[in-house]
Amino acid sequence: MEQNEKLRALETLQKKLYAYNCASNSLYLDAVTVAPKNTAEGRGVALSILAGELQKLMTAPETLALVEELYARRETLDTLHRREVEELHRSCRQLTRIPAEEYMAYSELTNRASDVWHKAKEENDFASFCPILQELVEYNRKFAGYYDAEKAPYDALLNEYERGVDTQQLDVFFDTLRKGLVPLIRAIGEKPQIDDSFLHLEYPVEQQKAFADYLMEVMGLDRGHCGLGETEHPFTLEFNNKDVRITTNYDLHNVASSMYSVLHEGGHALYELGIRDDLQYTCLTGGVSMGVHESQSRFYENLIGRSRAFIGAIYPKVQEFFPAQLGNVTAEQFYRAVNKVEPSLIRTESDELTYCLHVMVRYEIEKQLIAGTLTAKEVPAAWAELYKEYLGVEVPNDREGCLQDRHWSGGSFGYFPSYALGNAYGAQMLHNMEQEFDVYGGVAHGDLSAVTGWLREKVHQYGHLLEPAEVVRNACGTFDAHYYLDYLTKKYAELYNL
Amino acid sequence: MEQNEKLRALETLQKKLYAYNCASNSLYLDAVTVAPKNTAEGRGVALSILAGELQKLMTAPETLALVEELYARRETLDTLHRREVEELHRSCRQLTRIPAEEYMAYSELTNRASDVWHKAKEENDFASFCPILQELVEYNRKFAGYYDAEKAPYDALLNEYERGVDTQQLDVFFDTLRKGLVPLIRAIGEKPQIDDSFLHLEYPVEQQKAFADYLMEVMGLDRGHCGLGETEHPFTLEFNNKDVRITTNYDLHNVASSMYSVLHEGGHALYELGIRDDLQYTCLTGGVSMGVHESQSRFYENLIGRSRAFIGAIYPKVQEFFPAQLGNVTAEQFYRAVNKVEPSLIRTESDELTYCLHVMVRYEIEKQLIAGTLTAKEVPAAWAELYKEYLGVEVPNDREGCLQDRHWSGGSFGYFPSYALGNAYGAQMLHNMEQEFDVYGGVAHGDLSAVTGWLREKVHQYGHLLEPAEVVRNACGTFDAHYYLDYLTKKYAELYNL
Repeated sequence: MEQNEKLRALETLQKKLYAYNCASNSLYLDAVTVAPKNTAEGRGVALSILAGELQKLMTAPETLALVEELYARRETLDTLHRREVEELHRSCRQLTRIPAEEYMAYSELTNRASDVWHKAKEENDFASFCPILQELVEYNRKFAGYYDAEKAPYDALLNEYERGVDTQQLDVFFDTLRKGLVPLIRAIGEKPQIDDSFLHLEYPVEQQKAFADYLMEVMGLDRGHCGLGETEHPFTLEFNNKDVRITTNYDLHNVASSMYSVLHEGGHALYELGIRDDLQYTCLTGGVSMGVHESQSRFYENLIGRSRAFIGAIYPKVQEFFPAQLGNVTAEQFYRAVNKVEPSLIRTESDELTYCLHVMVRYEIEKQLIAGTLTAKEVPAAWAELYKEYLGVEVPNDREGCLQDRHWSGGSFGYFPSYALGNAYGAQMLHNMEQEFDVYGGVAHGDLSAVTGWLREKVHQYGHLLEPAEVVRNACGTFDAHYYLDYLTKKYAELYNL
Repeated sequence: MEQNEKLRALETLQKKLYAYNCASNSLYLDAVTVAPKNTAEGRGVALSILAGELQKLMTAPETLALVEELYARRETLDTLHRREVEELHRSCRQLTRIPAEEYMAYSELTNRASDVWHKAKEENDFASFCPILQELVEYNRKFAGYYDAEKAPYDALLNEYERGVDTQQLDVFFDTLRKGLVPLIRAIGEKPQIDDSFLHLEYPVEQQKAFADYLMEVMGLDRGHCGLGETEHPFTLEFNNKDVRITTNYDLHNVASSMYSVLHEGGHALYELGIRDDLQYTCLTGGVSMGVHESQSRFYENLIGRSRAFIGAIYPKVQEFFPAQLGNVTAEQFYRAVNKVEPSLIRTESDELTYCLHVMVRYEIEKQLIAGTLTAKEVPAAWAELYKEYLGVEVPNDREGCLQDRHWSGGSFGYFPSYALGNAYGAQMLHNMEQEFDVYGGVAHGDLSAVTGWLREKVHQYGHLLEPAEVVRNACGTFDAHYYLDYLTKKYAELYNL
């Protein structure tokens, strides 16, 4: 085969991967939105066949030969093709590095674990989940060796979610945050609490839907390319850079819940919609890492969405949507309410300030689980101890404790830290943005175009064209947790008169 | 390969076909329900690749060898495997006759045509759709040659939708109907008209939705396996016999519109849900032909749903849903209103009596398009002429004329006649059913179980296990359009005092 022919084969391969991805995405979207209740079985058959076909395609001798040959002469390729080949080479190696029987046994285990976890959570019965958690840990420790035998197991796992990040960096990162945040949160706990009771009046769903539409408009999300749906757990799903879906969940008694879900998922959506056209239908499209993706969602949710400037800009309209509930509430009161700090038990419901401490608890525990210095059986006690130490709260039960997240039951160890990293990346991006233009000046007029323009230029457009660390360097400079800590300290000290 | 091994390979092949089918169905369902407006392009890429993969699978040498070998010794196989092999053999032969690139280009064309048609209809701009219509016609004429070069092109296309039916039979069929119906409709036009104004009061969508749920319950549709969605054009989509979706459209000023859409699509759904479990994930599942499918939907829509017995049974409940609108309307008035005969422009809104004439217009036109005796450009004029001749109505514009249906934009030529055949099959099934039990006696008590049981036994269960003509024979005996004509004549002569 001539080089040109090989590159055409490369394009075809990637379009197929795209098509399989679209198919599974579509079936998944259907499953969590409109599919009738008792239809999982037939969909499962289809999904597992499609997954098998994808796996077969990626491990086919022709595919491996093509990728290996192009990889060997990657230096002769243009940037795009070189990066495509590097990514595919990595994916192929990832797929073949776990022995097939182990992979199948593990798939079966995570399937089962998901059900067991669900039931254990419902029934607050950690004991029933404990053995399977230990099994999952052991599989992951073993797989870490397959991923990268030269790294410590947890580092190898971290690398799967946020390439280039290791325990050493994360220890420093979390240490910095802990030292700054724990005393700050304690000090806030001694100050008079903010009243947010008006956020919990009855907010009719129809008005919340109109509000969500408005927020998407403010964010500049083109509804011709970005859908808004409704699911129990909000998420973002991308088909390509012209077709992204976000979902939200309307809580009748919490207007902030859907509002910040829309801003959060909208941030993810802007990332996907901002990726360059020439990366479409290749393996270089899509956000580059969990951490960078989260930096974008949290940027719109918190750095913008929970800012005084943004609230000030949208508040007249917010009052129009909810005159009965917010007619007598000022923009400043609303701003304070959505920034109320309250150490709590549930990560996904936690405020901007305490959020990272929730993540830190999980980081400490999974690090030790994978290292083998903590067993599954010891998790509840460790969890309670760390929540007490970091957040000052007592954990009354495992349902609201170590059983709250689905991640471990799905076999994800090393995923959690990316949530915290994303927040910190965002804060540092904000700092850099402010050196270039008056960020909140524009936001105060409801104009996010400069912000989105900056992020599109520094982050969104690249997709996987750059490594995660390069994107971070591009937008943040040398990563330093102090920007995030400074942002939080300044904001919350002012809010609570410290 | 041993025979057993071959049969396992056969099973795997069919499961893959099922998975590809699920994938395309899901992407299609998404496209017409929640997908943002400007996302067709990326979906088109995915769909055409999936179609290409399916095509490749069906035309792969291993597939062909497997199917050919099993086909050669089909007499040694059990009934199920034999029918599977026969169906696959037919499909493979059909597919291998279309060159892969043409097939993919055509998939992309129909995807694009759908958007163009949509816009053209919205803007009443036939000119913008005309060239693509001509392209679709030419593809279909060409494909007809691939399907069966020995048949006239339109006969080959007809055969795709209703195996065994040809122009000669249809000419006789439509001739019978035209000769009986045109004078009947003219006579009705001279009688005092039925008042149906109360059907067009304001019927709030929320109450219509509750009514739709009720109708599905009356039909015995299990909501755990049958979803109800909302689309501009109602349809039924099946993933498997445990997962079927129907859609409806709520017209604020026409309570009968969604009511009869639900009964119609519900009839399709009962067929799919009634197919035997042992045919699942094989090529024998799914309704056997368009005509037989339509016989089931029209059975519930008209033969049941527009019967005096059915209206009598559900009417107290109907009044509960719409007390303000129907409180003073009797069941008999409602029965007469939903059976009002009025020659009109829109097929999908036409009454039971004039419906087949709408189909006949399309039949005459597409027959000529495919024959090449009519060009796309001439369609609007031909349309107007035939509507005047058969129905006595003037066509004021193309939106309400030849742009009204999606079929041609989806590449379906030869599909329309099956609508008329279905009606006729259904009437003959009803006749046979009445020989066995008191059909309307049960219906008058709101009990459709005997009807559904009969149809399940004679029609639904078989899927593709029997040929369309065998199913028709099974349920109808020797097909004869006079049963349908007699049913219509009797019903409408009584209604209009003729």
